[in-house]
Amino acid sequence: MAENNTYKMVELVGTSGKSFADAASQGVKRASKTLRNLDWFEVIEMRGRIQSGKVAQYQVKIKVGFRLED
Amino acid sequence: MAENNTYKMVELVGTSGKSFADAASQGVKRASKTLRNLDWFEVIEMRGRIQSGKVAQYQVKIKVGFRLED
Amino acid sequence: MAENNTYKMVELVGTSGKSFADAASQGVKRASKTLRNLDWFEVIEMRGRIQSGKVAQYQVKIKVGFRLED
Amino acid sequence: MAENNTYKMVELVGTSGKSFADAASQGVKRASKTLRNLDWFEVIEMRGRIQSGKVAQYQVKIKVGFRLED
Amino acid sequence: MAENNTYKMVELVGTSGKSFADAASQGVKRASKTLRNLDWFEVIEMRGRIQSGKVAQYQVKIKVGFRLED
Amino acid sequence: MAENNTYKMVELVGTSGKSFADAASQGVKRASKTLRNLDWFEVIEMRGRIQSGKVAQYQVKIKVGFRLED
Amino acid sequence: MAENNTYKMVELVGTSGKSFADAASQGVKRASKTLRNLDWFEVIEMRGRIQSGKVAQYQVKIKVGFRLED
Amino acid sequence: MAENNTYKMVELVGTSGKSFADAASQGVKRASKTLRNLDWFEVIEMRGRIQSGKVAQYQVKIKVGFRLED
Amino acid sequence: MAENNTYKMVELVGTSGKSFADAASQGVKRASKTLRNLDWFEVIEMRGRIQSGKVAQYQVKIKVGFRLED
Amino acid sequence: MAENNTYKMVELVGTSGKSFADAASQGVKRASKTLRNLDWFEVIEMRGRIQSGKVAQYQVKIKVGFRLED
Amino acid sequence: MAENNTYKMVELVGTSGKSFADAASQGVKRASKTLRNLDWFEVIEMRGRIQSGKVAQYQVKIKVGFRLED
Amino acid sequence: MAENNTYKMVELVGTSGKSFADAASQGVKRASKTLRNLDWFEVIEMRGRIQSGKVAQYQVKIKVGFRLED
Repeated sequence: MAENNTYKMVELVGTSGKSFADAASQGVKRASKTLRNLDWFEVIEMRGRIQSGKVAQYQVKIKVGFRLED
Repeated sequence: MAENNTYKMVELVGTSGKSFADAASQGVKRASKTLRNLDWFEVIEMRGRIQSGKVAQYQVKIKVGFRLED
Repeated sequence: MAENNTYKMVELVGTSGKSFADAASQGVKRASKTLRNLDWFEVIEMRGRIQSGKVAQYQVKIKVGFRLED
Repeated sequence: MAENNTYKMVELVGTSGKSFADAASQGVKRASKTLRNLDWFEVIEMRGRIQSGKVAQYQVKIKVGFRLED
Repeated sequence: MAENNTYKMVELVGTSGKSFADAASQGVKRASKTLRNLDWFEVIEMRGRIQSGKVAQYQVKIKVGFRLED
Repeated sequence: MAENNTYKMVELVGTSGKSFADAASQGVKRASKTLRNLDWFEVIEMRGRIQSGKVAQYQVKIKVGFRLED
Repeated sequence: MAENNTYKMVELVGTSGKSFADAASQGVKRASKTLRNLDWFEVIEMRGRIQSGKVAQYQVKIKVGFRLED
Repeated sequence: MAENNTYKMVELVGTSGKSFADAASQGVKRASKTLRNLDWFEVIEMRGRIQSGKVAQYQVKIKVGFRLED
Repeated sequence: MAENNTYKMVELVGTSGKSFADAASQGVKRASKTLRNLDWFEVIEMRGRIQSGKVAQYQVKIKVGFRLED
Repeated sequence: MAENNTYKMVELVGTSGKSFADAASQGVKRASKTLRNLDWFEVIEMRGRIQSGKVAQYQVKIKVGFRLED
Repeated sequence: MAENNTYKMVELVGTSGKSFADAASQGVKRASKTLRNLDWFEVIEMRGRIQSGKVAQYQVKIKVGFRLED
Repeated sequence: MAENNTYKMVELVGTSGKSFADAASQGVKRASKTLRNLDWFEVIEMRGRIQSGKVAQYQVKIKVGFRLED
């Protein structure tokens, strides 16, 4: 954040069958398809879906920050 | 959330002269004009405007979640 | 909030047998008996009383904001 | 809470197609099927499900408090 | 949550020597021994125990939600 | 929490005419009548009832954690 | 809260050289000098002053609720 | 807080066209017109109004604490 | 908010070398390049970057609210 | 805080078999062994350990503030 | 945070007669006397002292983060 | 926490290219270089850095608790 830029945050829920870290990673990867200059993310909430008595899906709500171009 | 999709959240303030439930409902209806795959909402904050000593407007800040298409 | 006035908040619990929106409305109506320039309210907490296994009363804790006169 | 009893809280999610107040009411009614001495409830979270661009279900997470018998 | 059912939340602390995701998974698995219709979980808190200067145990406090049968 | 057990939390409100510490203590004592392996508690909220202008009852909402047996 | 009254909350900081419970008690006693129908209080914050390396004063910020007369 | 006095908090929103610090300062100045023994304030919330794409007003919600006289 | 419109919130991080108020102001100014009907903002978080032992940049995370056109 | 000094906060957990107030007091006393100019403390969290169905230890997490010398 | 370093946070209260931004700045400047590699700060709380009905001191509680050397 | 000891908390940010659990683990390992009697940690915040549209670093802010020797 060197030159007094403005950043925008978008909020996503990434999901994964493996772990919370992977769910965050999936959300970031999806965001990078349509947004440039992605810089950091913040975890807001962690949840998951249960099926047949087991964790079937890890869900991580994140905010992703990216620099707005002038 | 079956297939490890990514979801996006947008934040809105819906308003209504009737009730908090209706204000949330109005916000969701407005969101559905421009967004597809709306799935759920979360209430963030409830406020209202007062006029002549009466509640003139119920305001509900919500986050609306929808599935991103690939 | 056009001219850099100062506003005061008072905290009330409005109650109703009907709904949360009505409970907020009752609290605002009562406040307007003794306070002028009521402008907005914010919901702080929602609770209720149960009798014979049914909701007997909806309770909404609100902050009510009003402009202080000079 | 007159005589220094102990109370227990259980957490429920009540749901309704009509309003947040009704969703809380449904949750309380269901709890009263298996629990006695229900005394009060506290709203923890409000969410909802969207279908075809409209609110299809109001969901209220509540804690219900009841007196433990000796 | 299609038909306006009521859901109950129970709070657990799952533990694991491997990761936060595994700790949540262990808690869910244990809950499924005595509860039916488990549907989702929410992470409340993450902690851990340290032994000999290393993380010896990951602990995840979760709320598990399940549908109440009529 | 040595061997990767799972723990359950129950939420109680203990009450006392003397102090917050005694109210927590009363809640724990009552819980131990029906639950085994009680291990720790966490204070969630402190309130009280007033009668004739004096504190008539200290109320402490606590979560009590206990180990689930296999 | 039987008849759908409205309640007002005032926020105080009670202080004591003895304990948190006594500090809350002092605040309530002072409030009862000028307010009628005091009904309950809620603890918001606990702090204290240190002098010569010892706790010299326990401070409890409370909200006191009382019924408004018609 | 030397002699175990009781303090009262009032909540205000101060406003200013210049800065958050000035908005807090305006709120305190207004409070001192009608209250004595003002001692400290705490910032609760910071917001602002936008006009023509610029910040037109900084708003600071504060709690102001003052000693109650015996 | 007179006519039951819906509002949208976007989240930004404004930055400035001078003050928190200026950082918020910069974020709002940037938002107004691409968004119309900006109405208010709310401060979510305040941070900053340090260089050579001095504050080099004030950062303010804000939510900006604007009216959606029909 | 008269002359624009800087203060430092350290976080401690004080413990006691008697009460929350005593646990805070023990933590402060221990801090004063190695730190000078201790000025105030803030309660962050209250917990406790249970043994044989009784509260065996009150634990209070506090932040202690002290003035830094120039 | 390029090479997976560990960072430490210390908590300070900076004070100033001018503004919140200056108070944060003073705290950072004081921290840099005894700590190296200061990288960022986060605002935790804003308060102030009032004298003769005016803000006499702005106080900002901050956490300062710095890289630990190996 | 058997004998009414006092514990100290230090706040760290651990980082890792692999997962949140590993980032917490790295922070604990680093702390054990200079601190003895490390006992437990608590997760405060989870964030990460993004590079080229992928998560490049998981960051976990933790508080680490250790027993103070007499």
